[in-house]
Amino acid sequence: MDVSEEKGASSAGVVETRRLKLDLPPGGLALKNGGVLPEVEVAYETYGELSAAGDNTVLICHALTGDAHVAGYHSPGEKPGWWEEMVGPGKGIDTDYYHVICSNILGGCAGTTGPSSINPVTGRPYGASFPAIAIADMVEVQRLLLAKLGIGRLAAVVGGSLGGMQALEWAIAHPEIVDRCICIASGVSLSTQALAFDAVAREAITNDPAWLDGDYHGTGKGPAWGLAHARKIGHITYLSPEIMKRKFGRERTAPDGLVPGNQKFQVESYLDHQGRKLVERFDANSYLRITEAIDNYDVAAEHGGIDRGFSGVRSKFLVVALSSDWLFPPEQSEEIALALVRNGKQVSYCVLSAPHGHDAFLVEIEHLADTIRAFLPWVTPVRGRRRDAGAAACDSGDADGVNALISRYVPSGAKVLDLGCGSGDLLSALARDRQSSGFGVDRDLDSVIRTMDRGHSVFQADLDRGLSMLPAGSYDCAVLSGTLQQVRRPRMVIL
Amino acid sequence: MDVSEEKGASSAGVVETRRLKLDLPPGGLALKNGGVLPEVEVAYETYGELSAAGDNTVLICHALTGDAHVAGYHSPGEKPGWWEEMVGPGKGIDTDYYHVICSNILGGCAGTTGPSSINPVTGRPYGASFPAIAIADMVEVQRLLLAKLGIGRLAAVVGGSLGGMQALEWAIAHPEIVDRCICIASGVSLSTQALAFDAVAREAITNDPAWLDGDYHGTGKGPAWGLAHARKIGHITYLSPEIMKRKFGRERTAPDGLVPGNQKFQVESYLDHQGRKLVERFDANSYLRITEAIDNYDVAAEHGGIDRGFSGVRSKFLVVALSSDWLFPPEQSEEIALALVRNGKQVSYCVLSAPHGHDAFLVEIEHLADTIRAFLPWVTPVRGRRRDAGAAACDSGDADGVNALISRYVPSGAKVLDLGCGSGDLLSALARDRQSSGFGVDRDLDSVIRTMDRGHSVFQADLDRGLSMLPAGSYDCAVLSGTLQQVRRPRMVIL
Repeated sequence: MDVSEEKGASSAGVVETRRLKLDLPPGGLALKNGGVLPEVEVAYETYGELSAAGDNTVLICHALTGDAHVAGYHSPGEKPGWWEEMVGPGKGIDTDYYHVICSNILGGCAGTTGPSSINPVTGRPYGASFPAIAIADMVEVQRLLLAKLGIGRLAAVVGGSLGGMQALEWAIAHPEIVDRCICIASGVSLSTQALAFDAVAREAITNDPAWLDGDYHGTGKGPAWGLAHARKIGHITYLSPEIMKRKFGRERTAPDGLVPGNQKFQVESYLDHQGRKLVERFDANSYLRITEAIDNYDVAAEHGGIDRGFSGVRSKFLVVALSSDWLFPPEQSEEIALALVRNGKQVSYCVLSAPHGHDAFLVEIEHLADTIRAFLPWVTPVRGRRRDAGAAACDSGDADGVNALISRYVPSGAKVLDLGCGSGDLLSALARDRQSSGFGVDRDLDSVIRTMDRGHSVFQADLDRGLSMLPAGSYDCAVLSGTLQQVRRPRMVIL
Repeated sequence: MDVSEEKGASSAGVVETRRLKLDLPPGGLALKNGGVLPEVEVAYETYGELSAAGDNTVLICHALTGDAHVAGYHSPGEKPGWWEEMVGPGKGIDTDYYHVICSNILGGCAGTTGPSSINPVTGRPYGASFPAIAIADMVEVQRLLLAKLGIGRLAAVVGGSLGGMQALEWAIAHPEIVDRCICIASGVSLSTQALAFDAVAREAITNDPAWLDGDYHGTGKGPAWGLAHARKIGHITYLSPEIMKRKFGRERTAPDGLVPGNQKFQVESYLDHQGRKLVERFDANSYLRITEAIDNYDVAAEHGGIDRGFSGVRSKFLVVALSSDWLFPPEQSEEIALALVRNGKQVSYCVLSAPHGHDAFLVEIEHLADTIRAFLPWVTPVRGRRRDAGAAACDSGDADGVNALISRYVPSGAKVLDLGCGSGDLLSALARDRQSSGFGVDRDLDSVIRTMDRGHSVFQADLDRGLSMLPAGSYDCAVLSGTLQQVRRPRMVIL
């Protein structure tokens, strides 16, 4: 099952969750929505070692019900972390190179201060009195954690779903800290449909009689039904209709009898199971506060438009959409990528073929790992074997002379759009010979990965669909080298 | 708002819901799942007049929470019936021509026997003891109603969503009665995703403390919260993501303040409103029993495959998909149409451009009305003005001689596929001169409507997408007359 182990990757091994209290100003942590937290404790894990240059930290931001336990095992034989296949020696985020850190988010229930924590002022759990939080508060808590750990730069911040929103917020709020930003299956805000699902899910919790207006902590009970129900609604949105059909179809859990209505469909039993599992490990008030933070995240509303939101970022971006994600459909990732292009930022964009749906970033790892690996910056290995020399190491470049020929026609310093960029050879040659910048376009994921691996930005797009998606002024000149003859509808490209 | 009134259409006027007790066998009505109902009362409405020939009855089957009140007003100034824009003099289902009947379904709560009815054996409401019902039982109750009213033939049976399943079941169970079957935004079974939504919605009802294990009838209360919640989940699935975004976006119900989480998004208020409205008029146990019947409907499982399910039908079919319906996506309608083609049945298929989503069959009426009008059989007007002479009345046919020329090459009695059938002139000429049958293909809805209006079957499809969807053997010869030059990718058509 662990694809990456076939490639000589291994596990991060035994890790532990550490906790520390943040150094807060005398009045406590002032939250975006007006609340204040007198104390904040943070649970976090790290993997790999910080380099002497301090340039190799990758911050991973988890999604709604995630925690700090990204990879490895708390003790041998235990369940591995939630992104085990992505993080470890030789994996997509290679802990032989990168110092990886992940902390439980503010408002969570896995070690970081949240509604189930003791309020130091009252000595009792916050419960309903836990203040409203925002994505920006989650990021601020992560920043204070990094500061306390002496980390002032991030090689990358990475996250999917809610984690992607945190990654975006990091790049927007702290451009001086974040070198690269990887935003997976996310958006600058939730769609109306997703808002609707969240609202309906929360209502199940707050209408569960055991919720007790949020003050069930310490009663030994809680709104288990409501939380499980909310999870079931969520889980439907995490899977594509296709994968649901393939996994469960119309199968039932019991053989056919006289009254089919009395037998559950397998999909129902599956959702029951998912609901039960979450209730065992998650707090209902955390679910409320965190989903409210997600619902309220809105880069456009906060900054007066998406473009203004991204105007000050300095990171290089990788925006990854998942083909069958309907909770954060690819259009929302494309929206981010295009806003960055309009701002003249460096951004790569791809749509991974992922039948699973939104959850694919947790379960369909292979291509995502390759994509992230190619995008992450080069750092000196801290220890262990050296990274294999790939396309990135050998700039075979313009062996056939065509690229040198093209170079003559490209103005020095021009912003080049390379249509059908292949391995990025031409972009590399132009950057070297003409000091050009720019980006490539290719429909093939391997080409996208190879081009990113050489340090260029690249958009995964089908030239046959036309290039109208690319904003005017995003390039000075476009190059079509060895590509037009492969295009099925050349007019769509040229016009 | 009433589009059809612009065309000289008018309302069915004041109508009343009538009720009658069915004539049942001595033991009562034996249900498909083993239960028995000692008595069944049915609420129904009729519009228009039955012709002397008895050939003009159109049965309308309503959807999940519909009722017998399709059109007109119970008293002046009251809210019109749920399909007012479709049914009435001069409308899509024209009551100057057709005798329209609609009854509340078995298990419902608007006059027909259901869980809130009095069980004659106990003298108390059925409540939880109401037996499981199936779509086939709903159809059987409609058949008994028609029998009691002396109606032995149906010019057409029409329905959307659950109504479409009833229409299919009518055609399957009673091929000798149904002349034409119109199935809108439906399927031969629910998708896995839709099953999941239904299961989660029902759980909200059965976990509402006021449900009292189903025996809340007569307590003056009921699982209002659970029913409203179920309706909200349902309503999200009835709307397309695009229409949700367009209608509500991320707007809030109150001006921005310090804690945005405390203000509802408009979409949430809208769903609250929909939930409240349903609670006022619908019974929770009916919701359970009817959705279970929907979930269990499965033509393939019942008959050993979809093709076998349709092997005995004799009706002409019109299968209508709605472009942005994700509860019953167009693929499910296409599945029905293709199974009918494989069986050599007469079927027309179209995908209406309907941004609204699944609910479009209730709210975006114009094209649907034109489509249904064209498909319904010709009947003698019972009274009132005559139907306008349209394309259907003037067989202008092969004016240019081309059709006559083509006729010579088409074998007598051949099954012809006319690619780009336009108004159906060639199909008409071939039917007349060569006694051919067959069907047309056109991507243009107007052409589809005109071709149906002349009595031919037609598939709405883009020739550029290729014709691989059409099963082998569904035609003897294909004709491309005046079409190939308009096709953008001719190879896709020819190969």
